[in-house]
Amino acid sequence: MTSRPFRSEPQPSDPKAVRRLVTDAEVFSGIEIGWAAELVEDTLKRGPAAGYHFLFADGTEDLEGYTCFGPIDGTDRRFDLYWIVVSPKAQGKGLGKRLLAESMRAARDLDARHMFIDTSTRPDYAPARALYEALGFVHMGTLIDFYSDGDGKALFGRKL
Amino acid sequence: MTSRPFRSEPQPSDPKAVRRLVTDAEVFSGIEIGWAAELVEDTLKRGPAAGYHFLFADGTEDLEGYTCFGPIDGTDRRFDLYWIVVSPKAQGKGLGKRLLAESMRAARDLDARHMFIDTSTRPDYAPARALYEALGFVHMGTLIDFYSDGDGKALFGRKL
Repeated sequence: MTSRPFRSEPQPSDPKAVRRLVTDAEVFSGIEIGWAAELVEDTLKRGPAAGYHFLFADGTEDLEGYTCFGPIDGTDRRFDLYWIVVSPKAQGKGLGKRLLAESMRAARDLDARHMFIDTSTRPDYAPARALYEALGFVHMGTLIDFYSDGDGKALFGRKL
Repeated sequence: MTSRPFRSEPQPSDPKAVRRLVTDAEVFSGIEIGWAAELVEDTLKRGPAAGYHFLFADGTEDLEGYTCFGPIDGTDRRFDLYWIVVSPKAQGKGLGKRLLAESMRAARDLDARHMFIDTSTRPDYAPARALYEALGFVHMGTLIDFYSDGDGKALFGRKL
């Protein structure tokens, strides 16, 4: 794992790198993988006006992890964490925790006051849910059967 | 209040009528009013491909109420109720209840299996929350301070 600072500026190779990273995580659907890449492409095209901010963890060869977050329309300085993904090869070394903590800090620097995250209730998302709670996010509700039968949406939030 | 059947096809006068209706409800912000009109405009332009469905309650003079609902991307036949609004003049006569019940039926006809709704926790949204619970929606969580300090997002859902 790299310990160099995270990069916040997307670069032209990122849509492909993010697509690979999100695919390798093996928990996201095809439609979700497409969205993840789209947010990076959109930001490369439109810049900060797109409303998405990123932190990229560059490894020696590949992208090892990234986060995507931004303001929630119609709210007072509330941010959503849209994506947090760590490559299977880089897992277990605290990179997810560092990425989330740095994203919270970066959001605060952008004047964010609260951050919200939602994720699946499926067992393979348990590490993600544990990470959010470790960083002070509160589980505020679960939409039962939200994605499909037996697959709910867990909702987390915290003041920054 | 009219007792004629609801209209599902948007017409060119609806963006303006919806804007007036949503403004008159006095609980929505400027940005929310813009969104409501935009979904109708988008559907007039793009048709059902836009992913929004409507029920309009036409009164003798004005639009008395409407709902907007549609499939949630990335889910298995789950629908969101984006909007339900009844004109202050037409309130207290069961129109909201009829609109919601008919929207659930229309969503089922579009193969929806579950419906989700979110709304503000503010006191002026209490009638909306009571309506959802009266029609079998379960309160599944509350995102505290989601919109702003003291204004949370209440989340409801039910199987159709």
